[in-house]
Amino acid sequence: MNILNKVTNPKDLKNLTIEELTSLSTDIRDVLIHKISTTGGHFGPNLGMVEATIALHYVFNSPVDKIVFDVSHQSYVHKILTGRKEAFTNPDKYGSVTGFTAPEESEHDFFTIGHTSTSVSLACGLAKSRNLKGVKENIIAVIGDGSLSGGEAYEGLNNAVELGNNFIVLVNDNDMSIAENHGGLYKNLKLLRETNGKAENNFFKALGFDYYYVEEGNNVEALINIFKTVKDIDHPVVVHMHTIKGKGYQDAEEQKETFHWTMPFDLETKKPFMEEIVESYEDILGKFFVHKAKEDKEVVVITAATPGPVGFNYFRKETDLKDQYVDVGIAEEHAVALASGIASRGGKPVLSLISSFIQRTYDQLSQDLAINNNPALIMVHWGGISGGDVTHLGIFDIPLISNIPNIVYLAPTSKEELLAMTEWGMNQTKRPVAIRVPNMNVISTGEQLTCDFDNINVYQKTIDGSEIAIIGLGSFYQLGEKVQHMLREQTGIQATLINPRYITGIDRSLLTSLLDNHRLVITLEDGILDGGFGEKITRFYGDTDMKVLNFGATKEFTDRISMNELYERYHLKENMIVDDIKSILFKE
Amino acid sequence: MNILNKVTNPKDLKNLTIEELTSLSTDIRDVLIHKISTTGGHFGPNLGMVEATIALHYVFNSPVDKIVFDVSHQSYVHKILTGRKEAFTNPDKYGSVTGFTAPEESEHDFFTIGHTSTSVSLACGLAKSRNLKGVKENIIAVIGDGSLSGGEAYEGLNNAVELGNNFIVLVNDNDMSIAENHGGLYKNLKLLRETNGKAENNFFKALGFDYYYVEEGNNVEALINIFKTVKDIDHPVVVHMHTIKGKGYQDAEEQKETFHWTMPFDLETKKPFMEEIVESYEDILGKFFVHKAKEDKEVVVITAATPGPVGFNYFRKETDLKDQYVDVGIAEEHAVALASGIASRGGKPVLSLISSFIQRTYDQLSQDLAINNNPALIMVHWGGISGGDVTHLGIFDIPLISNIPNIVYLAPTSKEELLAMTEWGMNQTKRPVAIRVPNMNVISTGEQLTCDFDNINVYQKTIDGSEIAIIGLGSFYQLGEKVQHMLREQTGIQATLINPRYITGIDRSLLTSLLDNHRLVITLEDGILDGGFGEKITRFYGDTDMKVLNFGATKEFTDRISMNELYERYHLKENMIVDDIKSILFKE
Repeated sequence: MNILNKVTNPKDLKNLTIEELTSLSTDIRDVLIHKISTTGGHFGPNLGMVEATIALHYVFNSPVDKIVFDVSHQSYVHKILTGRKEAFTNPDKYGSVTGFTAPEESEHDFFTIGHTSTSVSLACGLAKSRNLKGVKENIIAVIGDGSLSGGEAYEGLNNAVELGNNFIVLVNDNDMSIAENHGGLYKNLKLLRETNGKAENNFFKALGFDYYYVEEGNNVEALINIFKTVKDIDHPVVVHMHTIKGKGYQDAEEQKETFHWTMPFDLETKKPFMEEIVESYEDILGKFFVHKAKEDKEVVVITAATPGPVGFNYFRKETDLKDQYVDVGIAEEHAVALASGIASRGGKPVLSLISSFIQRTYDQLSQDLAINNNPALIMVHWGGISGGDVTHLGIFDIPLISNIPNIVYLAPTSKEELLAMTEWGMNQTKRPVAIRVPNMNVISTGEQLTCDFDNINVYQKTIDGSEIAIIGLGSFYQLGEKVQHMLREQTGIQATLINPRYITGIDRSLLTSLLDNHRLVITLEDGILDGGFGEKITRFYGDTDMKVLNFGATKEFTDRISMNELYERYHLKENMIVDDIKSILFKE
Repeated sequence: MNILNKVTNPKDLKNLTIEELTSLSTDIRDVLIHKISTTGGHFGPNLGMVEATIALHYVFNSPVDKIVFDVSHQSYVHKILTGRKEAFTNPDKYGSVTGFTAPEESEHDFFTIGHTSTSVSLACGLAKSRNLKGVKENIIAVIGDGSLSGGEAYEGLNNAVELGNNFIVLVNDNDMSIAENHGGLYKNLKLLRETNGKAENNFFKALGFDYYYVEEGNNVEALINIFKTVKDIDHPVVVHMHTIKGKGYQDAEEQKETFHWTMPFDLETKKPFMEEIVESYEDILGKFFVHKAKEDKEVVVITAATPGPVGFNYFRKETDLKDQYVDVGIAEEHAVALASGIASRGGKPVLSLISSFIQRTYDQLSQDLAINNNPALIMVHWGGISGGDVTHLGIFDIPLISNIPNIVYLAPTSKEELLAMTEWGMNQTKRPVAIRVPNMNVISTGEQLTCDFDNINVYQKTIDGSEIAIIGLGSFYQLGEKVQHMLREQTGIQATLINPRYITGIDRSLLTSLLDNHRLVITLEDGILDGGFGEKITRFYGDTDMKVLNFGATKEFTDRISMNELYERYHLKENMIVDDIKSILFKE
């Protein structure tokens, strides 16, 4: 740690020798391995970027020169070199910075970024503004090869060349997305690597960029030389560097996908500190789809570069199903259109996306899928209130999906209901169906359910009571059960309990019947209230005497706030809900 | 018309000679010119595609072979050749087909398409399904050069090469988007045209495609030869053909942008049949932005390939403002990120988008802009209920934008309010602001307004009444005025009238005060009710005795239904609203 001890800010690098900078890379790598193995985090991406980040800050003059990291999960080294070292060296400070760039932390960070493929476009904004101000700055967008499959990255590249001035795109090519790469572009990158950047056909040159190739992307000296060459360049240029994902930690170099992001693990035993959850909804679905695909060769599962989180790891291993498994790369828009096209011909596409990333597909859900009313099935994972990063919240998918016509969005409450709905979704041929996979521990009711949800918008009344009706949507149905129970214990009121099942519509008949002997309806949903499910119920009762209370999340961005705190803030604990109900009853 | 008379379906082409097919192209061009000049429609795109469409249907075997037209505004010739000739030759049938491909019209149409850049991905779905079924079909995606700037097209191209089987992309290169093209790709297309397709650097080859170039894209014989060459090919191939937009109508060849889409016009005088509207909100804004940009060189206006419809035609002509005008091409995602980047540095970006196309930017609005809370200004045009095509509805932008945290979405009700809000939006530095430009005739109140909307979510009470409060949002404020007036005339009730101004939040103080002497609140909004503005008001009153009625559009896709019929259907005529109000008052 001799060198790292001397470095706090980029200026501290300027007088170091190449040997010292190389030693610094060893110091930083040690720090990263210890820190990430302790707390969890993005492992491989940061180990691969150690030398490049050192070289960037050695050659360029941040924050006058501006570096934008795509998806920014490879920005840990940048944080270490820009005043935030302690967050990586001092275990007491491990939680003091986020896992992504954050302008509120440092003048060296320009954007909060957590979704891929955005760096080039954001950096174009910095460059355009620089040009209008007439000042001199280097603008650098750092983007991984995996992120290049996203449409926004392409739109940015296509436009960047029109800036007509300094603009540097550093392509960090480690030959991996989270999983392996998919797409024709990657053949071109491979060809460029194999020809030391000299192949005639060059994706970046075809888009109008000047181009440099660096084979030794983990060699500080080589990188410094190339960065010095392009510094203050007067036109857009791509520097394509070949790095090794997980560089310096053998297991991470060998198992690139496993070590893309890791849970905390013991460096000695290499075992995770936390025990694995026995069974998840993703596991259950993954096995189910393997079974279905073996029965029917027109079943196709589709992922956008996240096969692990959506439960497709089983599926990928089945070599006889390889034609029925499609990873499109980070290309959610294409994924939706592809699914629509397959469904239009009677195929059975299952597209599994993470809630936060389905945000990338609104127009495709609406235009490519819903207007065409093709019966594709979309599984939405990780939806719901979470203590996660601001860029990965799962609270927006209900307003996003459920206000598009034609799509039926379902909210299962148990393993049995999830599987029944999934089977129905795959077999029905009338419409696009989306299913919000509960983001909770698995609940099994043991019920036998028929796989028929053709009677759209028919809710299920599970307890027939009076005075109060509780509508618990999807993963919040069990919360509804608890509220029903606590309310009975505290007041003697036997409230009606309803599992609505359908997020996208109103059971007018059932809701009308409640008017007879109920005076309060409460709705519970695991997402934001604005534009969500509960508001539709409230609107239905707008001209009646029924009182309605909607429980859910506030429309706000939260960043690593604990679930407990958020549930308090949103009045989502059963005792708080019961108190709110009582205050209405009492008021009257 | 000798040849066209003999042709009803693609099979009728098969035995024609090259000379007859060439004559057919003349016949079709005459039909198109007469039909489109009479009804309005996409003029240039269809004239350029006459020969290619004939050649496609001559060589391929539709519908076994499947042709997917990107954006499909160039599908008129395809419609003429696939059983729908009368809709173009018989004035009585002019309205019998849509301006886009439509599966309900013909087995030769596979998708309803109206947004750009989707054809390759949708066709990938057809190809994937074909592969799984193990049948033999040619799958052909037709895409214009303009559409290639969209991210979804790139995602599709990148993935198409992995299909490993027959897949034909026909690039219709007329060197134009709606306006001129922007981006590095277009330099490559130009180079390919100039080298007869032989340039070493080739965007399509870089993505892994086989490649053929046809210079004479309006020559039936040349096209037939190339299509015969690629028919039944066993791998993905791009056929890049150079066509002339507007081919065969001199004015359209010379004024490509004007003749992209035309209103009905007189072929003799070349004048439009309908008189021009004296002044539009777009004109007013266009002039305003020119004025602002001349005052402040950090004002930048941004369009995504639709400068005309958003009022930027003035701006484009100002040569001293050329650095402050950015057309990113059809790349809405990039446009939002670019605006965010410019705003992050104190620049003043104004991004003007059409309501239906802002759908392409949900994730960028949320991640690139709102999380970063950068003070970009977004103008949303053409929002509201319309009699338009199903792919171009303007009723979804309120749920889409207003349920994203941090963004303030404003709804002006007059020219004065629009300009005051716009000025405030450009000058304030706290947050992203969006403004819904009224899609109505210009209303001028003559009021002097202060440009200060910093007191977020403070509504304006314009008439202080009792019993009933009418909240008229944006373009429906005047409807609220009419309802207020009619209600007073019919019942003597002086209702309160409110201009909420802010779509994105609730004026708790004002709404609470209404509880004192009102028993019914009605909301009026020019968009779908689900996830919209009115539901937020209704939720606010959920636990009170206030009755609330929300008026707006139903969550549904409508296709060329007249405004009059939609207003009837949604109870949006003032007498219907008054009747609904009275039925509530009477019921009590």
